[in-house]
Amino acid sequence: MTKPHILVTNDDGITAPGIRKLVELMNEIGEVTVVAPDSPQSGKGHAITVSSTLSYEELSLDGPQRDFACSGTPVDCVKLALDKILTRRPDLVVSGINHGANSSINVIYSGTMSAAVEAGVEGLPAIGFSLCDHRWEADFTQGEDYIRKIVLQALENPMPKGVVLNVNIPNVKKEEIKGIRVCRQAKAKWEESFDERVNPHGRKYYWLTGYFNNMDKGEDADLTALDNGYISVVPVKFDMTDYDYLPKLQEVMDSK
Amino acid sequence: MTKPHILVTNDDGITAPGIRKLVELMNEIGEVTVVAPDSPQSGKGHAITVSSTLSYEELSLDGPQRDFACSGTPVDCVKLALDKILTRRPDLVVSGINHGANSSINVIYSGTMSAAVEAGVEGLPAIGFSLCDHRWEADFTQGEDYIRKIVLQALENPMPKGVVLNVNIPNVKKEEIKGIRVCRQAKAKWEESFDERVNPHGRKYYWLTGYFNNMDKGEDADLTALDNGYISVVPVKFDMTDYDYLPKLQEVMDSK
Repeated sequence: MTKPHILVTNDDGITAPGIRKLVELMNEIGEVTVVAPDSPQSGKGHAITVSSTLSYEELSLDGPQRDFACSGTPVDCVKLALDKILTRRPDLVVSGINHGANSSINVIYSGTMSAAVEAGVEGLPAIGFSLCDHRWEADFTQGEDYIRKIVLQALENPMPKGVVLNVNIPNVKKEEIKGIRVCRQAKAKWEESFDERVNPHGRKYYWLTGYFNNMDKGEDADLTALDNGYISVVPVKFDMTDYDYLPKLQEVMDSK
Repeated sequence: MTKPHILVTNDDGITAPGIRKLVELMNEIGEVTVVAPDSPQSGKGHAITVSSTLSYEELSLDGPQRDFACSGTPVDCVKLALDKILTRRPDLVVSGINHGANSSINVIYSGTMSAAVEAGVEGLPAIGFSLCDHRWEADFTQGEDYIRKIVLQALENPMPKGVVLNVNIPNVKKEEIKGIRVCRQAKAKWEESFDERVNPHGRKYYWLTGYFNNMDKGEDADLTALDNGYISVVPVKFDMTDYDYLPKLQEVMDSK
């Protein structure tokens, strides 16, 4: 049997410890190609590069995989990989391991998850992995047994087209992880508080800061699972239509 | 009665003809504040600026509205407006009129729609408007009667929290527009074809190009409505959980 071909990407950049751990794990399972940003691309969401150009180069890093560093966003990496770099269509696309949580509403800001979603748009099974510890030196061994398990299950049980997985690993010791919980995206948001400063020329400028406000204590919410020491797995779809509101909206639009 | 306060933004930049038309229309309805990018931000999706700083300045443009040009992405504009610029919470956020369609899967790449979605995350009613003509000199009078109507209806009939509208205007003459159709997001995607070039130093680089592939002829799809001369209105939600697949995924994860 041919080994599955696994495309690995991320948003923290190709040299981040999180992606190197994911590459190591994927090398155990399949033939791996890495196409990842040449610099950090956190918070890039589903951005694509339309007004400038892209380039990539192959690197020589440790391991049997091939590594390509790309100048664009995470979504650019997936597009460029599929159109120009890969010689064989991947059986699975994995993104991460992100340095920091991508649970709840972070799915829309996250370059890691947007890369996975883009792979889904391309009709490929895809999974984004994130660790709830944003430090560069975070311990990525915590979730490795579960990452192997989830990837093997995804390869054996094809997901329906149009669904990608958002996997978050709680920031607890390996032996304290209680298991996997399939969840919905929690209702939560960032409460912005821009830090106002004045530059040497007297002009004001702003740094985005804030805190994360979880308004959702539901047992089936991803944040609850993480708070309780579980790995959260949310099936994510990119048909953003609110089907429940469709009939009511039709009434509103039909009214005078 | 106090006039409604309307925040206007876009992704083509604060001086684009599309946003100036939207400002003109909104001035008829409410008290308007514009906070929009100081340069084109197409394809920025839900990107936010986390690794550098933001700034803004007030401009003096024609009309009773106040105009603020912001250095960031469309989503940054909404965040900065709500936290630092506006003195009164808006009753409605409108984004556009985009130069070019944002129907179907474009909702995830579009800065115009991401700004509307961000307003939705902030608990505000929000609508993104796009014209299916990407030219700078496009005729934005085509949909103006419908834009007024949709905005007035949204102000009178509060949408549920967590829903924003994606409105696309077909590229036909004003008198040929057949009406408004409430739709779902069509299943379609871009088929990438990167244009490979060689720079003066002998290195390859790439321009993103491609064509749009509509795989969905459903009567209720937004692309079908537009093809038939209707204005499409899709209710968009940012809870991306695939609730239909949740139970099956739980089974998969529970299996050995």
